[in-house]
Amino acid sequence: MIIVMKPKAADKNIKAVTQYIEANGLTAHLSQGEQVTIIGVVGDKSRLSTENIALLEDVDRIVPVTESYKLANLKFHPEPSVVKVGCTSIGPKTRTIMAGPCAVESNDQLMLIAEAVKKNGATILRGGAYKPRTSPYSFQGLEEEGLKYMQEAGKAFDLATICEVVSLEAIEAAVKYVDMIQIGARNMQNFILLKEAGRSGLPVLLKRGLCATIDEWLNAAEYIMAEGNPNVVLCERGIRTYETSTRNTLDLSAVPVLKERTHLPVIVDPSHATGAYRYVPPMAKAAVACGADGLMIEVHNNPACALSDGPQSLNFEKFARLSKELDPFWKLAGRN
Amino acid sequence: MIIVMKPKAADKNIKAVTQYIEANGLTAHLSQGEQVTIIGVVGDKSRLSTENIALLEDVDRIVPVTESYKLANLKFHPEPSVVKVGCTSIGPKTRTIMAGPCAVESNDQLMLIAEAVKKNGATILRGGAYKPRTSPYSFQGLEEEGLKYMQEAGKAFDLATICEVVSLEAIEAAVKYVDMIQIGARNMQNFILLKEAGRSGLPVLLKRGLCATIDEWLNAAEYIMAEGNPNVVLCERGIRTYETSTRNTLDLSAVPVLKERTHLPVIVDPSHATGAYRYVPPMAKAAVACGADGLMIEVHNNPACALSDGPQSLNFEKFARLSKELDPFWKLAGRN
Amino acid sequence: MIIVMKPKAADKNIKAVTQYIEANGLTAHLSQGEQVTIIGVVGDKSRLSTENIALLEDVDRIVPVTESYKLANLKFHPEPSVVKVGCTSIGPKTRTIMAGPCAVESNDQLMLIAEAVKKNGATILRGGAYKPRTSPYSFQGLEEEGLKYMQEAGKAFDLATICEVVSLEAIEAAVKYVDMIQIGARNMQNFILLKEAGRSGLPVLLKRGLCATIDEWLNAAEYIMAEGNPNVVLCERGIRTYETSTRNTLDLSAVPVLKERTHLPVIVDPSHATGAYRYVPPMAKAAVACGADGLMIEVHNNPACALSDGPQSLNFEKFARLSKELDPFWKLAGRN
Amino acid sequence: MIIVMKPKAADKNIKAVTQYIEANGLTAHLSQGEQVTIIGVVGDKSRLSTENIALLEDVDRIVPVTESYKLANLKFHPEPSVVKVGCTSIGPKTRTIMAGPCAVESNDQLMLIAEAVKKNGATILRGGAYKPRTSPYSFQGLEEEGLKYMQEAGKAFDLATICEVVSLEAIEAAVKYVDMIQIGARNMQNFILLKEAGRSGLPVLLKRGLCATIDEWLNAAEYIMAEGNPNVVLCERGIRTYETSTRNTLDLSAVPVLKERTHLPVIVDPSHATGAYRYVPPMAKAAVACGADGLMIEVHNNPACALSDGPQSLNFEKFARLSKELDPFWKLAGRN
Repeated sequence: MIIVMKPKAADKNIKAVTQYIEANGLTAHLSQGEQVTIIGVVGDKSRLSTENIALLEDVDRIVPVTESYKLANLKFHPEPSVVKVGCTSIGPKTRTIMAGPCAVESNDQLMLIAEAVKKNGATILRGGAYKPRTSPYSFQGLEEEGLKYMQEAGKAFDLATICEVVSLEAIEAAVKYVDMIQIGARNMQNFILLKEAGRSGLPVLLKRGLCATIDEWLNAAEYIMAEGNPNVVLCERGIRTYETSTRNTLDLSAVPVLKERTHLPVIVDPSHATGAYRYVPPMAKAAVACGADGLMIEVHNNPACALSDGPQSLNFEKFARLSKELDPFWKLAGRN
Repeated sequence: MIIVMKPKAADKNIKAVTQYIEANGLTAHLSQGEQVTIIGVVGDKSRLSTENIALLEDVDRIVPVTESYKLANLKFHPEPSVVKVGCTSIGPKTRTIMAGPCAVESNDQLMLIAEAVKKNGATILRGGAYKPRTSPYSFQGLEEEGLKYMQEAGKAFDLATICEVVSLEAIEAAVKYVDMIQIGARNMQNFILLKEAGRSGLPVLLKRGLCATIDEWLNAAEYIMAEGNPNVVLCERGIRTYETSTRNTLDLSAVPVLKERTHLPVIVDPSHATGAYRYVPPMAKAAVACGADGLMIEVHNNPACALSDGPQSLNFEKFARLSKELDPFWKLAGRN
Repeated sequence: MIIVMKPKAADKNIKAVTQYIEANGLTAHLSQGEQVTIIGVVGDKSRLSTENIALLEDVDRIVPVTESYKLANLKFHPEPSVVKVGCTSIGPKTRTIMAGPCAVESNDQLMLIAEAVKKNGATILRGGAYKPRTSPYSFQGLEEEGLKYMQEAGKAFDLATICEVVSLEAIEAAVKYVDMIQIGARNMQNFILLKEAGRSGLPVLLKRGLCATIDEWLNAAEYIMAEGNPNVVLCERGIRTYETSTRNTLDLSAVPVLKERTHLPVIVDPSHATGAYRYVPPMAKAAVACGADGLMIEVHNNPACALSDGPQSLNFEKFARLSKELDPFWKLAGRN
Repeated sequence: MIIVMKPKAADKNIKAVTQYIEANGLTAHLSQGEQVTIIGVVGDKSRLSTENIALLEDVDRIVPVTESYKLANLKFHPEPSVVKVGCTSIGPKTRTIMAGPCAVESNDQLMLIAEAVKKNGATILRGGAYKPRTSPYSFQGLEEEGLKYMQEAGKAFDLATICEVVSLEAIEAAVKYVDMIQIGARNMQNFILLKEAGRSGLPVLLKRGLCATIDEWLNAAEYIMAEGNPNVVLCERGIRTYETSTRNTLDLSAVPVLKERTHLPVIVDPSHATGAYRYVPPMAKAAVACGADGLMIEVHNNPACALSDGPQSLNFEKFARLSKELDPFWKLAGRN
């Protein structure tokens, strides 16, 4: 941590800062410039509430130097992680495609979709049983019934399965039926849920919050990992900006940034990010091209009749074509 | 709802849309322009998944006309609501000041603060017992113990009390000890928690999410109200923008916008929005000047030693001065 | 400037950085922590291209310590400036109201409006003669003709006058007719125009760019001042965020932030920020309450027939009422 | 255009709106719902100032239906355009790489760089002679001298050339020396400059403003085209968001969105968008993968000594490697 003093800070105030630091068992290094004095703080910073130093007289600002996340940090775990999910895994050599409907609507529907996505390269079946919806009057999902359908469809077509969870109850149910749980964008800083997900024993897909910085996202992953669960996969799904041509703005640069900061695998969801099926294929290719370990794509047997997110879903034919078109991009990324 | 067709949409595609509408028991009104055809949809729209119409051939876009929130809507409840909170209430004639520490740290600390804020015009004591923190390694609150201190301090100084809740367990504990619960910004779209808050029987302060639109916020209020709990108060606390001079950007225009759309009271929290005690007094005055029904302000006996959010807390002297300075602003707002 | 090295930076790389600094005639102060080494740089930084240091081996990041603006900086000019504009001035004791139509439409219209705003407390007549419009097919202003009308109206009613300029030609014309020129939001970083404005001899109202940080804005002011023109007034007019309920998001916190960083006067324009006349009165009051030195408000004799920005314009009656309601807010701000 | 009336709008107010429309020579189509009345407006809307209708009694809001840009609109020009630039061209079959230094520093430097980029696939040499810089105290470019070096280097290595222009003088100079001019992000809505660029006769690269919507960007292109210059190429270079891990947020989804709305070619600049050379290769590949017609990449012989933007520049070796790695991505995009 670095403390920048105001220009012409009084000596007694500089001294007060160094005394505060030393009183907390840390060491202060002074760097006296012509205009400003800078104080480097060395030692175990968890001992002091660093933000309060900003309140001491003549302190201009505090500059943190080390990240607050440790377990997720590439610095302390320099090899990329591989996360096992049921019969498959996600890592630097894999081609992960999570595909399926936004919401599980019926057993028949799910079987149809599972068959279609399996035939076209999907490794994990996705499907929502608990739907967080903006309005309380929208369809909220089949809940546990939907999870059972997921399990059956996964078994029938040899696919791993993933479902979003929104509560402790949902996690307890998910543990019985699916291979991976998802924390959605709206719950990325629902810390209670993160801890429960950490204790569930299942691998966790952590979506980025709509206005979460990359560092906040990695701190959210840290909540899960701090409970003893190292199996976290990150999913970029668009951030909120002023641009309304797409539902959100897909932040693909986050992929190489994350690759520098964390060892956790990174997945991209172009369906939720763009909100329109026409933009899914180009953005899926771009995601693989810039280093994503996998994709999450919404697929529906009949998008025009989907109970949720129809406009962004691919039908079987479009998904099959995309899957074929992705093949050379995976190869270029060293994924065979 | 209005459906805008693409320029030169084929007649058969226009017909397909009207048939789809009528098949769902609704009525379609055509408006044929030189360039584009517009279709107005009349009837109970909850019958059809409107977004899917975007997938029909030649449809350009869908324009919603009515809001999805009803109970929170000023159109259906044209009088401003007054929400009773313990011994006080929040409404168009009241001067609500919620004041207290970010986090409850000890019984002694809370007693000191409660006394000081009561003496200077606060009506509600705030204090966090369950703290959602970005990093899992930061102080997370005293939990139920903290709630007990809140109750004692509230009784001792005749103040209503409010605490943030982050889980069902926290709500169950809060019901026993405090007068109002708060849903924080990070949980604004934690729909499970909103429903539980709705069923708690306590009035609820709903903070705006960091990147929530005003309409999403009102839909979140609708989740609480749809459970039979009409006692919701909204709290603007800054939104996330590109500007980093303040922690968030306080969106004061939201106050008059909300006054046009909802009957629910509106509170402003300049402490969290700005993140710096120096900006709290001017923004508090501005909030009252533009029509806020109240303020939430962080006050600490010794900000430099606060366990959380010290830099944005007022000490007793600053809070007393602000309270005095606010007096004429309240009067100008018709609050005596 | 502070240079933060990566954890476990090699000694030879740390040495390379200090040598680079010293080779540029500056002094390096090392602060060696357990995890990271920090290097403070002391001396005249204009000698080296500081951002390139980021490219040296094992450098983690560069933290600037001093602001790049000098003339606009409160640190070097601690008294608030008063800017003279024609027959009036703008400063810490004044009540500045710039009022008038978005666009000058005719001489008659302008005379009507000038009379009305003068009667109700305006000190400066605003009116656009050169209109930057999103579409090339929208009305672009009366140009020099419009400036002449401004001059006549200003003289007739003893009002100072301000007009937006968009080019060197517009500045040359403006110098002949009006008392102050305005650089609009879209031109805030049109550095050529800023320099010309600096050389014009006229006081300059510098609007904040739609996505400008406060520091970029002060650097833009510096461009004007570096040409020898100290008479700059800043105007907050809303920034672009994801929220669409108002045209832009009025960032009122910028007022106290600016008061800490610069001696230049600060004006607020609630008309352009909100885009709706109904929100202008509450936000105007809030602006005065949080310390603004003045307001810019659009007033039109018949908003429903305005050639530009009708929906955000006040008619005479609404302006008169607002002016009266503002009186106690000015007084509370120490402006008599 | 669609006018949505408020619920329970009075008949006389609905009538007032239709009369206003008809008085302007247009036709109104009523669509009377149970809750709201909708009025479709048919005819030549350029006749009335549509936004003012929002001021008529009981009008809820105005929904525009047709885009305000015509010449740039794919609807009226369904084939993708090919823009000729000196000895090369930019279009749906080309592999455009604009490469070179941020700022032209000397003739020798530019010759070195031109040779290196030519050898590795660049088709256009970029180099800044007029630099818009945030601070007036930063290096501002060699101006006309720099343009001459550009011409010499272009001739020597058979490269087309492009330079940013910031003023009429710069355009007049550029016409003499280079093949294409660039309007930078900060000037995207400098309408005077856009018009001058339109009249210059040279093809124009129009960079997206830091907070410009896609529609505002296309309207800016329309300004150039309305002067009789159809040769406009768009360049996505990152937008401003709350995320600070990259300098801006590269909005790659804008590529497929633009391909649906306009026939103009689209280029992506990953150097300015990310601000860090390490992120340039992955984002360059992603840009080609999602359909970009070309790339703009900063290349410098010695980034650590660059006068501007060193940290985001590739050295020769990195550029050569990227160019080789891009080859299969170009092929997959049908560009041979």
